[in-house]
Amino acid sequence: MGRYDLEYPKEATNTVERLNERGTYALETIHRIVNSSQILHVSFNTPSQPFPVILPMIGQMGSFDRPSADLGDPLDLYLHGYVSSRIMNLGRAGSEGEEKGMPVCVAASHVDGLVLAISAFSHSYNYRSAVLFGHATLVTDEVEKLYAMELITDSVVPDRWQHTRLPPTKAELQSTGILRLQIASGSAKINAGQAHDDKKDMENEAMRDSIWTGVLPINSTMGEPLASPYNRVDVPGYISEFVKDFNEDNQQQAFNAAKDE
Amino acid sequence: MGRYDLEYPKEATNTVERLNERGTYALETIHRIVNSSQILHVSFNTPSQPFPVILPMIGQMGSFDRPSADLGDPLDLYLHGYVSSRIMNLGRAGSEGEEKGMPVCVAASHVDGLVLAISAFSHSYNYRSAVLFGHATLVTDEVEKLYAMELITDSVVPDRWQHTRLPPTKAELQSTGILRLQIASGSAKINAGQAHDDKKDMENEAMRDSIWTGVLPINSTMGEPLASPYNRVDVPGYISEFVKDFNEDNQQQAFNAAKDE
Repeated sequence: MGRYDLEYPKEATNTVERLNERGTYALETIHRIVNSSQILHVSFNTPSQPFPVILPMIGQMGSFDRPSADLGDPLDLYLHGYVSSRIMNLGRAGSEGEEKGMPVCVAASHVDGLVLAISAFSHSYNYRSAVLFGHATLVTDEVEKLYAMELITDSVVPDRWQHTRLPPTKAELQSTGILRLQIASGSAKINAGQAHDDKKDMENEAMRDSIWTGVLPINSTMGEPLASPYNRVDVPGYISEFVKDFNEDNQQQAFNAAKDE
Repeated sequence: MGRYDLEYPKEATNTVERLNERGTYALETIHRIVNSSQILHVSFNTPSQPFPVILPMIGQMGSFDRPSADLGDPLDLYLHGYVSSRIMNLGRAGSEGEEKGMPVCVAASHVDGLVLAISAFSHSYNYRSAVLFGHATLVTDEVEKLYAMELITDSVVPDRWQHTRLPPTKAELQSTGILRLQIASGSAKINAGQAHDDKKDMENEAMRDSIWTGVLPINSTMGEPLASPYNRVDVPGYISEFVKDFNEDNQQQAFNAAKDE
């Protein structure tokens, strides 16, 4: 597409109210935060209790109808889980009834740094967080299920799918449930920058002479690959390159966040 | 306490149904996962829409009535956020009515490694995740608010509170909202170990000779502290030691998870 940046409409559901200069509704930004999260937090309600439930799941944005779609295009979120778990049962109920699916909220968050100021109340995080709202239904079409499994597997380690035993067995496909979340809206909130204090604290010489202020950058790191007891092969290039890129990119991200004003 | 390990009662709300050998209900285990999470995902419902909402927040388990309580004791969860945000307003409504507060679910998750097997369907994560269910109310007592602010600040960087400008101003205290979550139940799920495949794949010589299997350990890492433009002091010992311990502990945790069978 590329003519302009698509945005989710601003509604009561997704509007960022606090510190709204940090908010963004651009699909590409939101989808990128979701796709780079190794764990997504998925929230839904069950009929039996007053509390919403949160499950950690693995997921990835994609388009089965148009697999070549860009990150900034309208996409679905594919979520992976065990077929008989509560969320899958509710998603199945949603897909069989006349409703559009189970209402779900998905959150993805990265911490890029701890921001330490003179006042404890001016402390903050550098972070990138996104939420998506949508309706979840169970994927029943086998070809779409395979599409989603490949999408999600390759999101964990790029190119991994074609380096596994293929094709999947019937039992594997049957025991794996995929939810497709049709997105209703979403938003992201990003904070980056150095420490900052109120004028009064900045002008307090005694405090500035005694309190360290700055950012402790934080990133996710992968260590040396640890081969299984039954492994017989050397670490392949697509894995060692992924580990290297992952570490460099994440370190750079945390460093840049602290520099960004 | 220490005579026995307290557990949250197993009920429909919190029972781990999938792979339940991974589930645990021990307060100490659950509280430890929560307290070591830099971001908690907090889910609640709003009257205006069908979707639950998830907010990323900072929080810590504590006991205002018995500050010396252990991690394995019954504790409250204190959550930090801006006072006028949606969750705070709902928490305030809960605390003023006759109800016990707003029903909330809190999730904390750590990824310790990517577990790569021969079959894509035998891939998994090493992880530690916890959920807590409870009722949230706004903390109105000023002394309790200060207790929680110190608790939460020191959870981000140990000892930081006493190294900030104290006491807080009236405006700071007024603009900061603290939610206290009274816990109704909770559970944790932990997965650790090396790659594993079904018998048929393990006996497939061609696959074992071509597919790398093992764990990519993952941990959160802090880089070199980046001083702010207005900083005048060297990185103090309590910060540099924290960074060193944080990195060593997390790396060890990810490594141990892959070794644990």
